[in-house]
Amino acid sequence: MLVITDEEIKKHVTMKQCLAAVEEAAKIYRTGNNKQPIRTAMNIDKQNGTMLYMPSYSEEVGYTAVKIVSVFPENRNRGMKSLQSKILLTDAETGAHVALMDASWLTVMRTGAISGVAAKYLAREDTRTCLVIGCGEQARGQIGAALEVRELETVYLYNPTRSKAESLKAYILDELAFNGKVEVVEDPDEKAGDVDMIITATNSVTPVFDGNLIKPGTHISGIGSFKPSMQEVDVNVLKKADKIMCDTFEGCMEEAGDFLIPMEKGEFSEETIEGELADLVLGAVPGREDNDEITFFKSVGFAMADLVTAVEIYRVMKKQ
Amino acid sequence: MLVITDEEIKKHVTMKQCLAAVEEAAKIYRTGNNKQPIRTAMNIDKQNGTMLYMPSYSEEVGYTAVKIVSVFPENRNRGMKSLQSKILLTDAETGAHVALMDASWLTVMRTGAISGVAAKYLAREDTRTCLVIGCGEQARGQIGAALEVRELETVYLYNPTRSKAESLKAYILDELAFNGKVEVVEDPDEKAGDVDMIITATNSVTPVFDGNLIKPGTHISGIGSFKPSMQEVDVNVLKKADKIMCDTFEGCMEEAGDFLIPMEKGEFSEETIEGELADLVLGAVPGREDNDEITFFKSVGFAMADLVTAVEIYRVMKKQ
Repeated sequence: MLVITDEEIKKHVTMKQCLAAVEEAAKIYRTGNNKQPIRTAMNIDKQNGTMLYMPSYSEEVGYTAVKIVSVFPENRNRGMKSLQSKILLTDAETGAHVALMDASWLTVMRTGAISGVAAKYLAREDTRTCLVIGCGEQARGQIGAALEVRELETVYLYNPTRSKAESLKAYILDELAFNGKVEVVEDPDEKAGDVDMIITATNSVTPVFDGNLIKPGTHISGIGSFKPSMQEVDVNVLKKADKIMCDTFEGCMEEAGDFLIPMEKGEFSEETIEGELADLVLGAVPGREDNDEITFFKSVGFAMADLVTAVEIYRVMKKQ
Repeated sequence: MLVITDEEIKKHVTMKQCLAAVEEAAKIYRTGNNKQPIRTAMNIDKQNGTMLYMPSYSEEVGYTAVKIVSVFPENRNRGMKSLQSKILLTDAETGAHVALMDASWLTVMRTGAISGVAAKYLAREDTRTCLVIGCGEQARGQIGAALEVRELETVYLYNPTRSKAESLKAYILDELAFNGKVEVVEDPDEKAGDVDMIITATNSVTPVFDGNLIKPGTHISGIGSFKPSMQEVDVNVLKKADKIMCDTFEGCMEEAGDFLIPMEKGEFSEETIEGELADLVLGAVPGREDNDEITFFKSVGFAMADLVTAVEIYRVMKKQ
């Protein structure tokens, strides 16, 4: 059995491979013979923690995975990660357990790739500028994927704690070897009306920029809020958008406060959502149709993306 | 994170340690702050296989475990094990995933230890002879535990395929370094009325010996049948027994055909079961009360025994 660490994944698995895996996952999610039982949650009351167990299976891919996540918020006081995640991969032909892998960087990569695949279909071909709001771990995958699918020239970064934005800037320039300009800004609204693409990757419960500022042709990707109570984009984004897409409708209707909060206020209807990532990949919903379209893509993640990405990582690492 | 193989467990973890772990597990099962969500089953239709996910937690023990089992019956045609099992252990204080271990030998050991703890309380102190019916992998743990808790002089082995009994005989003499006599018999009924202890470890759907033969003072341990359709002991064993105990009442009422089949026929009432392993360990139900008592112990296994045994194995292996 292979044991695969975050460090090894960082070293050997490219964003290009993850983009292909997520595109495949989106297809299989719609067309394949999949299983994804309801996840089990087990509370660890003493630590105010939670254990989550998320199994998945795709006949086409030929593997089952179970993602095991411990969420221990009090770890922050210990200088430890509050979320610690592993994936156990099992060969679906023989039942052999073939790999255990760290799932932190995998999650960063696959979440980036989900946005990246969406941007491939929805962002303007001539997208040159991008604003990233929220500069934590997830932002690394987001910008990594954006740089793969579009030829960016300038990246603006905003984070309430400026040092995190500076640290992401160094990552983009050093690790991603970006040749363009990276600028840390003091206020996202300075740039929100000026860029071709906006990525939000925060845990915010209030919108992180003024949706009224958005210019025609902008593509917005919201990946940070993943609870009904979280909201990164205001209702003006939804109102101004010509095309609203999501990774999975079911997941977003469970978790995406960006939709659920305005829906509860009667300011937005789920019927406005034109489709899922699978629709873009399969061509059931057209991608961007003209240069003036405003497009919004919302992602909360889906198990098939974890499974197919994990299998891709396993295949890459087996060759090492 | 430690990765622990069956071979390492075989080499470094003793049955004595497992017996202590199971005794602890029985106590905690009754008195502790535990969680054990309903297990998730995911069918792999194409292979007629099943994936099982079984999480558990004990605040007292301070760890969570999830047992991941793949059951692929068609593996028999491939010369592969049909059941392949792993346990992921997580520190319940920090959520850190600390060990992944093979769970095949662990299951053999903990199932043996469950019977061993029961026998410690229920078998005659002067138990010298033991008949083992069913000589597969599980029997190794059964006899290993019996030898720890009682000073056996003679072990009789029966298996429909004689070579498996011969192989178990070699294991007992060589690996367990047993000094007494080991004899393979052609018919369990030859010895069922003659021994101090009987262990059944089969998947049989029909009783494997004649319960009418049992002599006063015998202790019978049934561990093989684990489905409502399986039955190793006939109703005469239940009728002749002065004390009937089980590992967990809930588990046995779900799975133990030895009880459920005669209950369905109106030949046995669950009220006759005097208690659980925890009752013996905690002294709530007295163990053997005189030398003529016939005692019957039925086990289908319980998650707390897996968890505490896994933690014990982790502690032993950490010191290596």
